[in-house]
Amino acid sequence: MFTKMVLLFVIFLNIYVSLASDPDPVQDFCIANTAESATASNAIQCKNSSLATVEDFVYSGIKSPGKFGQTGLSAISVNSNVFPGLNTLGMSFVRADFEVGGVNVPHYHPRATETAFVLEGKIYSGFVDTNNKIFAKVIERGEVMVFPKGLVHFQMNVGDTPATILGSFNSQNPGLQRIPTSIFGSGIKDELLEKAFGLSSKEIAKLKKKLSPH
Amino acid sequence: MFTKMVLLFVIFLNIYVSLASDPDPVQDFCIANTAESATASNAIQCKNSSLATVEDFVYSGIKSPGKFGQTGLSAISVNSNVFPGLNTLGMSFVRADFEVGGVNVPHYHPRATETAFVLEGKIYSGFVDTNNKIFAKVIERGEVMVFPKGLVHFQMNVGDTPATILGSFNSQNPGLQRIPTSIFGSGIKDELLEKAFGLSSKEIAKLKKKLSPH
Amino acid sequence: MFTKMVLLFVIFLNIYVSLASDPDPVQDFCIANTAESATASNAIQCKNSSLATVEDFVYSGIKSPGKFGQTGLSAISVNSNVFPGLNTLGMSFVRADFEVGGVNVPHYHPRATETAFVLEGKIYSGFVDTNNKIFAKVIERGEVMVFPKGLVHFQMNVGDTPATILGSFNSQNPGLQRIPTSIFGSGIKDELLEKAFGLSSKEIAKLKKKLSPH
Amino acid sequence: MFTKMVLLFVIFLNIYVSLASDPDPVQDFCIANTAESATASNAIQCKNSSLATVEDFVYSGIKSPGKFGQTGLSAISVNSNVFPGLNTLGMSFVRADFEVGGVNVPHYHPRATETAFVLEGKIYSGFVDTNNKIFAKVIERGEVMVFPKGLVHFQMNVGDTPATILGSFNSQNPGLQRIPTSIFGSGIKDELLEKAFGLSSKEIAKLKKKLSPH
Amino acid sequence: MFTKMVLLFVIFLNIYVSLASDPDPVQDFCIANTAESATASNAIQCKNSSLATVEDFVYSGIKSPGKFGQTGLSAISVNSNVFPGLNTLGMSFVRADFEVGGVNVPHYHPRATETAFVLEGKIYSGFVDTNNKIFAKVIERGEVMVFPKGLVHFQMNVGDTPATILGSFNSQNPGLQRIPTSIFGSGIKDELLEKAFGLSSKEIAKLKKKLSPH
Amino acid sequence: MFTKMVLLFVIFLNIYVSLASDPDPVQDFCIANTAESATASNAIQCKNSSLATVEDFVYSGIKSPGKFGQTGLSAISVNSNVFPGLNTLGMSFVRADFEVGGVNVPHYHPRATETAFVLEGKIYSGFVDTNNKIFAKVIERGEVMVFPKGLVHFQMNVGDTPATILGSFNSQNPGLQRIPTSIFGSGIKDELLEKAFGLSSKEIAKLKKKLSPH
Repeated sequence: MFTKMVLLFVIFLNIYVSLASDPDPVQDFCIANTAESATASNAIQCKNSSLATVEDFVYSGIKSPGKFGQTGLSAISVNSNVFPGLNTLGMSFVRADFEVGGVNVPHYHPRATETAFVLEGKIYSGFVDTNNKIFAKVIERGEVMVFPKGLVHFQMNVGDTPATILGSFNSQNPGLQRIPTSIFGSGIKDELLEKAFGLSSKEIAKLKKKLSPH
Repeated sequence: MFTKMVLLFVIFLNIYVSLASDPDPVQDFCIANTAESATASNAIQCKNSSLATVEDFVYSGIKSPGKFGQTGLSAISVNSNVFPGLNTLGMSFVRADFEVGGVNVPHYHPRATETAFVLEGKIYSGFVDTNNKIFAKVIERGEVMVFPKGLVHFQMNVGDTPATILGSFNSQNPGLQRIPTSIFGSGIKDELLEKAFGLSSKEIAKLKKKLSPH
Repeated sequence: MFTKMVLLFVIFLNIYVSLASDPDPVQDFCIANTAESATASNAIQCKNSSLATVEDFVYSGIKSPGKFGQTGLSAISVNSNVFPGLNTLGMSFVRADFEVGGVNVPHYHPRATETAFVLEGKIYSGFVDTNNKIFAKVIERGEVMVFPKGLVHFQMNVGDTPATILGSFNSQNPGLQRIPTSIFGSGIKDELLEKAFGLSSKEIAKLKKKLSPH
Repeated sequence: MFTKMVLLFVIFLNIYVSLASDPDPVQDFCIANTAESATASNAIQCKNSSLATVEDFVYSGIKSPGKFGQTGLSAISVNSNVFPGLNTLGMSFVRADFEVGGVNVPHYHPRATETAFVLEGKIYSGFVDTNNKIFAKVIERGEVMVFPKGLVHFQMNVGDTPATILGSFNSQNPGLQRIPTSIFGSGIKDELLEKAFGLSSKEIAKLKKKLSPH
Repeated sequence: MFTKMVLLFVIFLNIYVSLASDPDPVQDFCIANTAESATASNAIQCKNSSLATVEDFVYSGIKSPGKFGQTGLSAISVNSNVFPGLNTLGMSFVRADFEVGGVNVPHYHPRATETAFVLEGKIYSGFVDTNNKIFAKVIERGEVMVFPKGLVHFQMNVGDTPATILGSFNSQNPGLQRIPTSIFGSGIKDELLEKAFGLSSKEIAKLKKKLSPH
Repeated sequence: MFTKMVLLFVIFLNIYVSLASDPDPVQDFCIANTAESATASNAIQCKNSSLATVEDFVYSGIKSPGKFGQTGLSAISVNSNVFPGLNTLGMSFVRADFEVGGVNVPHYHPRATETAFVLEGKIYSGFVDTNNKIFAKVIERGEVMVFPKGLVHFQMNVGDTPATILGSFNSQNPGLQRIPTSIFGSGIKDELLEKAFGLSSKEIAKLKKKLSPH
């Protein structure tokens, strides 16, 4: 019976994940259940509003940076899967910390515009539009840059101190597609990549080796 | 002729103001023209994308607080009228600074959800849902609270140092309706207000005196 | 087993409540199940369209006024929770009856525009925009006033006979936030309210006493 | 010069007509200019909100029935072209009066759901879903029927007194496609209609004669 | 237990049908479960993305025409019920084959615009707008005609060889309302139809006989 | 005066480009004016519907392939700028022809889902989701593949004859961002690209040389 209940709640979770839609909620809010709570006896898809508490609407997990990666970036994405109170509210956010010289690789969010507010440091920041035109400059503490919905953008800490950005999105789950790994780390046919980038099979192999997940 | 041209560009501005819509842009971006540029010879409703520069997507006007008001609050709202690069991108933001004990009066945004990130200080922050239930607590530096679309919310600096919040919205122009002035400072019939709040005409008169714009 | 089934259907109900969205249905209609029918063996989240009958699309509960409240108002809100046939169709409505001098207190609907049609009587009716400008006048039988989405509005029967209004909304669940009770009856900190309205703690206490639900 | 100005304002009118969109306005309201006012010196696409008055939000033109047509119906459609205050607010309405036996021919609204409230009389009222299933019954004073977005519906006064309905729509311009005239009065090739309805060319000619506009 | 599981999955299916919405998905994709797979133990509302395969996004069922009907038309509609990978992606399509002289009867799609690409043949193709104006002409191989959302349209093969069209829609489930059967084959009161079309009861009876489903 | 008129119409064009929105048109259609017609005396933003003809809704420019590029691809994108009749209708399309071995480089459309129908040939076709998982296979004549909104996708003709695809989009202007040129041909800082792809400055220089527009 227990496993059956678990299965059912997994199903509910997936229903929620699959059907919630950003625009025009039809209730004040809808707190989604996290996997942790999903097996509790009072677990329901949309927490009964009478059981909601202020804690459901406050997130305390980005007071400090997370783990830094290879390119000197630590990014904590807070979407409705992490912060269930965002469900149906059409917003989410991210804290990005940069080591000196740290890079946020070229990427885009398929489902949202982003406004990036510089909390600390000097960041070379920009995006590329569909006419292949670049818009980039160094922005500093207190400045805000907007990255239009779905366009490739990137950042690098060009200052000599750590840098931090707070990004906000107009979707509860903007999605993130990192160019280097999605192109060279996903398994696209070598021949296609060779022609697309004008590289030799050896060069492609090298890129794949570097950028494939291990 | 000059005045006629001015009139025409005012018209274009109003067209833009009236018709832009948050969801689903049909181009990468559309930089609206500001009143300042509207009379220039190359002024067009949606700046030709080939004339766009990175400056159109960076806002530098909230590096420091603005002027403080009666309740100890300074709020700088940055919507698409102030930052034309936001036009059609479905986002905007606000910087709110609080003196010790400063208050952001009960208000709501008719067209957006808000995520409020605490940059500094201790803020008593909350909202009321349509079942008249309050969700409020003191949030601190690095914490984020979400105010669901269209619900009344409020804030007060309960710390003993100044406080600052960065709010983000999922509309290019969320709108702001402050309860005290909209109810007692807009000119609603006294008799109606007396019955609605169970107050005497003298009490209503006193509230109106305090809360009407001078 | 029975209780388990009940629990499951409660879950489905909540799924529906949490995820339905006003715009762009992807089927002709989707009749939501009411709590009453939810335990019936053929109860499903979206009633099988082959089981739908014309009764699912007709509402007969506003032929006469409901119970009148303290301010001389009787309002029957008919949203998709009351009239399941409205689910996914993006509309709902309300019948409001006013005693002589009856008042519909300042309130707003976070998720809808309202068109109010006067069935009987003379109603002082108006709204306040986000520039704090009031738009109000007395409207009569056969006249229609529109209240833009999310703006505070109010009504009072200024005639010497009972009055009735039919309101329509462009959301299946517009929501309703009454200003007096949401501000003074929800439990917002006294100190904040005192500063927001420029009132003494004694005056706030009096308002709270009057406007808190008992 | 005058004619040029007129031409320009006609252009603005067309811009408005072409680009306004129902969902998610980005301002409180936007009062469109009517043809009448379009040549006035202060005419602008979206009336400056400081010039707006309460009259812009009240419609008084459906206090009584309009002219009755061949099938015993009088319908006054009030959309944003007729009532400019509805522009960007996502709603409109119609008053329909029926002589005894009067018929509202099968039709549909491509861009809206309709809620029909019976003000007077007994109306046989119904719609057909995309599975070709009919939902119809006689509704009476005070009852409300909902017609899902885009589905064919129809009405007939089956009582022995005149009847009146107030219809509301969730679009500022729902559109109206009457089946008899759109099929037989628009000029579709006879051969196609003969095969579609299994009628002889003589029968089609007769229908066309009856249903073509004169 | 088995039947109970079946019931539950039927419920999930209906939840999906009732709540999915075309605009703005909040995940990359959501593969709905077909009735066939719904009883399998790993069946969930939205297939776990880690279980998705490329086959979920490829449809091979329209390589050749389907069965031809009375009017010489074979139409295979591929919506999200048939091709679950389309769920939440806001698109669907149809293959229509015409015998010589074959007719696609006047119909419309309540929830989508259609772009029709001619794969083979000469097709008389057109639509009627809400001003009752017809837009029709013969289109040939390689030409594309657009039918605006919700407007009545029709097609006939006027060439002397079979013809084929590929139609695309901007909804995962556009819906289809065929005029002849929805009007004369659904059971609308004879008296209403007689008045609407100016036909005798004998003529209506004849039409009903021809157009009612057997 | 003439140049002034031209300027004005350019402005209107830009207004149109900036404000049209995919969802929920509020009229049957709105034919945008092309630059060519914009200086004609009857040129208006949204062609007066009484002047619209069937030609405005038929596109004949993709009967045959266009010019082939370096990677053996010819793509003719037909959006609302090319085919003004699509304006406000939420759809557009593309014809893509492939030489033997021809490649459609990894790219994505920020504003639309795509359904790709194979008219001729054998195409290796796929996309990468935001979990970096690839979905790819060889599809053949008559098969359809769907590329979810905003995800990177690609194609290569792996047959020994030319291949052709018809793509459809659920936006009037989906946008196109080609990865190779947007990353290496747009002018992103070398240092950032070196860190992002783990390449030497010499390797980056070589890629830039190949992929920058000349």
